[in-house]
Amino acid sequence: MAQEVEEIMKRIQSHRGVKQMMIINKDGLPLKTNMEMTPATEQIIRNIHELSIAARRLVRDVDPTDDLMFLRTRSKNDELLISPDEDFTVVVIQGNGE
Amino acid sequence: MAQEVEEIMKRIQSHRGVKQMMIINKDGLPLKTNMEMTPATEQIIRNIHELSIAARRLVRDVDPTDDLMFLRTRSKNDELLISPDEDFTVVVIQGNGE
Repeated sequence: MAQEVEEIMKRIQSHRGVKQMMIINKDGLPLKTNMEMTPATEQIIRNIHELSIAARRLVRDVDPTDDLMFLRTRSKNDELLISPDEDFTVVVIQGNGE
Repeated sequence: MAQEVEEIMKRIQSHRGVKQMMIINKDGLPLKTNMEMTPATEQIIRNIHELSIAARRLVRDVDPTDDLMFLRTRSKNDELLISPDEDFTVVVIQGNGE
């Protein structure tokens, strides 16, 4: 898995407009990130983990046979892309309109 | 506001692929919906309200001057579009790929 994580990181970081990115495991712990590890970053990672859990629960509320594939938030400045997978969740923060 | 809500409902419901939709006030209570009001629907509305609060908190964690404009989840079957505004939040559930 470590090699797979490395390849994903490299591929995503080569995209124009990517500001921050992280790969989180199923327990919400960061496997890899280009962000400096500060208490604020840890809080962001926890909130991202909780957001994807809440989104998955909502999708299953609407249709128990369904499953979350992707989550995107758009704000004035940025877009946050969350892609949950079996073993880990890939998260990218990019400038709005990239 | 009631008239504004009616117009938004009509405009959105005319779009192809729209399955469910609802307009929720700032306290998470439904102003308008084409969904039958059941305990399951109430649970969905509560979870949507919590999801948009969690997303807004996350956006502000990343950049306190920023604000959430739009939230989209994509699942195998559906797309859920959440558009928070000053007074209310418009939510649409549509088929995936509509």
